[in-house]
Amino acid sequence: MTSREYKKVIWTALLILLAFIIGVLIGYFSRTIVFQPDSRTKLLDKLNREGDNRITQKLFDKIDTGQIDNNLRILTGKPRLAGTENNRESGDFVHRRFLQYGLLSETIDYNVTLSYPDKTADNYVSVIEEDGTETFKTVAIVEGDEVQPYNAFSPSGNVMGNLVFVNYARESDFQKLKSMNLSCSGTIVIAKYGKGFRGNKVKNAYEAGAVGIILYSDPGDYSPSGTNSTYPNTVFLPNDGAQRGNIVLNKGDQSTPGYPAKEYSYRLREHELNSRLPKIPCLPISFSNAYSLLSLMTGDQVPDEWKGSLNITYRIGPGLTNKRKINLKVSNTLEYRRIFNVIGKIKGELEPDRYVMLGNHRDAWVYGSIDPMSGTIVMMETARVFGQLLKEGWRPRRSVLFCSWDAEEFGLVGSFEWVEDNSKWLTSQAVAYINVDSAVSGNDTIHLKTVPLLQKVFEDASDKVPDPYGKYNSVYEAWSSHPRLYKMGGGSDHVPFLAGLGIPSMYPKYSYLKDIWDSTSTPLYHSRYENYHAFKMIDPELKFAKTMTSIISESIRNLADSRIIPFDIDRYLEYISNAVEELLNHFGQVVGPKMEEWIHRSVNAFHVSAARLKSIIAAINNDNDDPLYARQVNDKLLWLERTFLIGEGLPGNSMYKHLLHSPDSANYYGGVTFPGLGGITQCIDIQNTTECHMEIHKHVAKIIQRIFDASKTLDS
Amino acid sequence: MTSREYKKVIWTALLILLAFIIGVLIGYFSRTIVFQPDSRTKLLDKLNREGDNRITQKLFDKIDTGQIDNNLRILTGKPRLAGTENNRESGDFVHRRFLQYGLLSETIDYNVTLSYPDKTADNYVSVIEEDGTETFKTVAIVEGDEVQPYNAFSPSGNVMGNLVFVNYARESDFQKLKSMNLSCSGTIVIAKYGKGFRGNKVKNAYEAGAVGIILYSDPGDYSPSGTNSTYPNTVFLPNDGAQRGNIVLNKGDQSTPGYPAKEYSYRLREHELNSRLPKIPCLPISFSNAYSLLSLMTGDQVPDEWKGSLNITYRIGPGLTNKRKINLKVSNTLEYRRIFNVIGKIKGELEPDRYVMLGNHRDAWVYGSIDPMSGTIVMMETARVFGQLLKEGWRPRRSVLFCSWDAEEFGLVGSFEWVEDNSKWLTSQAVAYINVDSAVSGNDTIHLKTVPLLQKVFEDASDKVPDPYGKYNSVYEAWSSHPRLYKMGGGSDHVPFLAGLGIPSMYPKYSYLKDIWDSTSTPLYHSRYENYHAFKMIDPELKFAKTMTSIISESIRNLADSRIIPFDIDRYLEYISNAVEELLNHFGQVVGPKMEEWIHRSVNAFHVSAARLKSIIAAINNDNDDPLYARQVNDKLLWLERTFLIGEGLPGNSMYKHLLHSPDSANYYGGVTFPGLGGITQCIDIQNTTECHMEIHKHVAKIIQRIFDASKTLDS
Repeated sequence: MTSREYKKVIWTALLILLAFIIGVLIGYFSRTIVFQPDSRTKLLDKLNREGDNRITQKLFDKIDTGQIDNNLRILTGKPRLAGTENNRESGDFVHRRFLQYGLLSETIDYNVTLSYPDKTADNYVSVIEEDGTETFKTVAIVEGDEVQPYNAFSPSGNVMGNLVFVNYARESDFQKLKSMNLSCSGTIVIAKYGKGFRGNKVKNAYEAGAVGIILYSDPGDYSPSGTNSTYPNTVFLPNDGAQRGNIVLNKGDQSTPGYPAKEYSYRLREHELNSRLPKIPCLPISFSNAYSLLSLMTGDQVPDEWKGSLNITYRIGPGLTNKRKINLKVSNTLEYRRIFNVIGKIKGELEPDRYVMLGNHRDAWVYGSIDPMSGTIVMMETARVFGQLLKEGWRPRRSVLFCSWDAEEFGLVGSFEWVEDNSKWLTSQAVAYINVDSAVSGNDTIHLKTVPLLQKVFEDASDKVPDPYGKYNSVYEAWSSHPRLYKMGGGSDHVPFLAGLGIPSMYPKYSYLKDIWDSTSTPLYHSRYENYHAFKMIDPELKFAKTMTSIISESIRNLADSRIIPFDIDRYLEYISNAVEELLNHFGQVVGPKMEEWIHRSVNAFHVSAARLKSIIAAINNDNDDPLYARQVNDKLLWLERTFLIGEGLPGNSMYKHLLHSPDSANYYGGVTFPGLGGITQCIDIQNTTECHMEIHKHVAKIIQRIFDASKTLDS
Repeated sequence: MTSREYKKVIWTALLILLAFIIGVLIGYFSRTIVFQPDSRTKLLDKLNREGDNRITQKLFDKIDTGQIDNNLRILTGKPRLAGTENNRESGDFVHRRFLQYGLLSETIDYNVTLSYPDKTADNYVSVIEEDGTETFKTVAIVEGDEVQPYNAFSPSGNVMGNLVFVNYARESDFQKLKSMNLSCSGTIVIAKYGKGFRGNKVKNAYEAGAVGIILYSDPGDYSPSGTNSTYPNTVFLPNDGAQRGNIVLNKGDQSTPGYPAKEYSYRLREHELNSRLPKIPCLPISFSNAYSLLSLMTGDQVPDEWKGSLNITYRIGPGLTNKRKINLKVSNTLEYRRIFNVIGKIKGELEPDRYVMLGNHRDAWVYGSIDPMSGTIVMMETARVFGQLLKEGWRPRRSVLFCSWDAEEFGLVGSFEWVEDNSKWLTSQAVAYINVDSAVSGNDTIHLKTVPLLQKVFEDASDKVPDPYGKYNSVYEAWSSHPRLYKMGGGSDHVPFLAGLGIPSMYPKYSYLKDIWDSTSTPLYHSRYENYHAFKMIDPELKFAKTMTSIISESIRNLADSRIIPFDIDRYLEYISNAVEELLNHFGQVVGPKMEEWIHRSVNAFHVSAARLKSIIAAINNDNDDPLYARQVNDKLLWLERTFLIGEGLPGNSMYKHLLHSPDSANYYGGVTFPGLGGITQCIDIQNTTECHMEIHKHVAKIIQRIFDASKTLDS
């Protein structure tokens, strides 16, 4: 071979080699092109996706005050009394709206026992002269479908007696009367509305021996700017306004305790039913009517702090001048009526078996523009904006339910029946319940009731929403400058969820009237003047309704879409630590050092377990790809609140099972640290017997056990 | 270019092209080599792995009868009465074994109220002549640490009276006496053991007015081959054998109902405690002692079917010949004693927060070779073989707990306290509980108690295990040729799990003595002769112990390792359908056509939901890769049994909350279709009042609700 030929061969060989190498490289990297994440890797990406924060702004941007206003106009267009055609109609309306919004929706009805004034007979209070003639009779003004002022579930009755003024008819008021040697036995008492749930007033009056009770709204409480500055010029109560309301301490359908009121249900017989209901007749009257009664009273003047602001000398009684008597006549009837809950649903994308719930009632005593409709419009607008995002292709990780309850005004009837009808899967599958009753009761700041686990959900959401007054950077900053934070207690539809099933709940509402009114309730509450016009005096541009909708939608998004359920365990730890501190301050002497040590042990165990879980959560948030692992953590979080339930229920009301977040037995509206110790505290204060000590020991032992249970739940 | 050169160039080009193509191919496919599943794909493979059937044979192969025998010898080496040093020692032994086997293990103690014979006083029955002299007195033979025959929780008492023979002291027996116009009021009754729980006998006797009750084991029931063919030659009861046992109808620690007996717990005060305990003294005696009493009786002969096989004429009484009286003296004391549960644990690999449990008690009345030790050795050997596989690197998907309970003989005390101490996380996290008390009580076939959900787990496991008699291909085939299948009822430590928390339970045991004994209990039961020797007469080669260990290990493996929890929903549907059929046969007239329709509606709803879930499960088993989706299905399965609980508990015993699988109130050992209807059935049979009808309506309404709840749980 010549060297030229040789070179040629070499070159050829090199070329072949080069072609080969290029081929290898092209082959190798062309293969790269098909090396895409396969479906299984995509599946993991999907299962592990974090909640999408960009959704927040999209939700906010879609909120439309025009839609809100329209819904409010329709809902407040008629009285919406539960059990009436008008409220079936509003149920249909909400149901149709949910479907329009793109949600699944169903209407669920129950046949329940409600209480109405007998249309064939009068409800009134009259003044009877010594000779038996009637010289005064209360008058209630109503129009059209408006129901006359009454207290639902008051027994019918026609009683005559001396009148006694009992201030707010709280336990402490009756103790005061007792200390003044004034017996209420056989009398009719008259009490001011306010400072607690009216049902407790009736119970206290009955226990003090009264045969009837009259409730009125003193202008000192409901018309603070004077009796000339009232509705329609202001949102204060005019002289003929009266507050309706139920007076039952047992909630839910009275005939079917513990079980839903279905066709197959066992209904209490009359004597069983009556044993659950109030025992003495009760009627609410306006302050102009009250004036006519109170101005006739004899007896000592009331203590200064009992005085209202009617232009009279407030006297305790007993009795009226010139031996006049009071006649109280109540004619109410118990009736089976059909009620309608509406449940709108968004099915979750990844964990459809986990539920975040938003609810409010829809029934009203009359027009209910604030209570409940200001909440219903927030709930509906939240549903609408979520529906919009569904249409854009987004779907939250978990399922969301939008619940419109009926017959809340009769004692949380709609929500209780539904919870009783769905208690099993709710217990295992519900993440949280947000209540938005009367969401715009005012325009000053937010009145927040929440369990500790959910406080941060509120804070984080409200921190993303601008302060409607523009004074602070966010609603959160405004709120936290003077936080109005309360224990859950009772008073609305969160009760069956939280006190009954241990589902973490929160209940925020815009409250207080800027500069003029500092109560979370509103002066026109449950009167016929709480109408569209009244609402517009509070929130003319619907900016508070919009603000609430923003906070609620973002809270729902966070709960429904975050990979790890955004419960704040630290807040719970802090809460428990403070709670047992308070407990020991009150009862340390009674429980003794050994129990005290066990209390601390249980709280320490909870702290240790919580710290362990928190480090697991931190690791998941960093880089853990295992969707089962994240679910396991979520399951513990979901269950945590349930661990504080006791099956037998609290002393005095077995429907309330949560050791921490049940209503206060002395004031159903309120929340106290350990609601099961309410009656016992009184026992200690008054009797201080071994019996009381044993009751405390018994209850504290349960508290210790449940704190250990919480710890074990996080550990197991 | 010459044609040759031209050809050369062509060839060269072709070669280059070939090299290129080969290069591309090599490059392309070499790339395949590095295209391995990444860590995330591996993660999914792991999370979705199916249960590994090959593990089954490995478990079987490791079972070692030498180990089993050794454990049995040690455990039966001393009396193991709860609350004594001997049983603390056995607890330590099991704990050390668990650790040796490679498990995590802990000992958990409770301070509980137990009942023992007073060592300073006698327990006896004597015959008193008319002149007051004592002419006969029962004698009980015990040695060493053996506790004398007694009935735990019998009150102390010293009563004198006429003797009445009451057969088995069942409700029906007392009804028979009543129909014969024979009053038990003020008498001491003597009853045969058998045909039901002794505690119910005591209750029935008390309700019939008796002031004391004597229990004895008639040779007709316990020595069927005659009084000469007994222990130590056979496993039949000799003439001086007596059956110990508790007589309480409330289970768990008597002082701390509903809560664990911890140092911080509230303990019932004496009057509260006594109200829960039996009211009349009760003592068990041997049949030689009974002979001396029964042979003195006067009165009519007993009905034929009441006769035992003592060589006497059985007479009803009342009274003995020559006006002799019976004196029954019981001196028992209630004592706080420490008891010890041992919990061995294997942490699951993928879902460690889900628990499969295997349990049995460890305390015995004396040596307890059958009850409980034949089960304890099965439980321990199961733990050992699982431990061996752990060491080989295998770990089940879910966690497994091996539970050794104390003080079962005193009324399921150890298991109840532990369940009360862990009720919250058990409710949300426990998959199933398998009970193996007295696992080798016999050698004929398996006596199976199970909830419908678990029946297939037993069947599948037993189908993999050879028939120890070699007659059939498998234990399953042998068993199913004549299935001994029973409702769960009471009688052992599954009660707090199933009747209290709704955790699906199963309780299989080898039972009956081949060709000679057809009862699930054993003749030497609770006597001092139930020892190692007696056990070896039943299972000399430990092949039944080995067979039970195989079935149990495979059942645990299946429950703990299958991707989808192997619950048989079809069996539950079938069970419910039959149950409501039975209900309507009994009470169709009472509940009426509307309720009947609702019953059918609820069962149909359950069927529809179950069919839906089953198709989801089928799809997952086919090709669904989503581990969250599988978990969601498992969570529904886990929760299904819980949906049949009612929080208030069954009429008559609020500790039992399961509408279907609670003990029968008339015989605590037994299971009936609807245990909550037991008392009501009697009400109907005897009184047939509106009151009874309402009670039935009330209970049936709860049943309907819970069937709907089951359906909703599968759907939500």
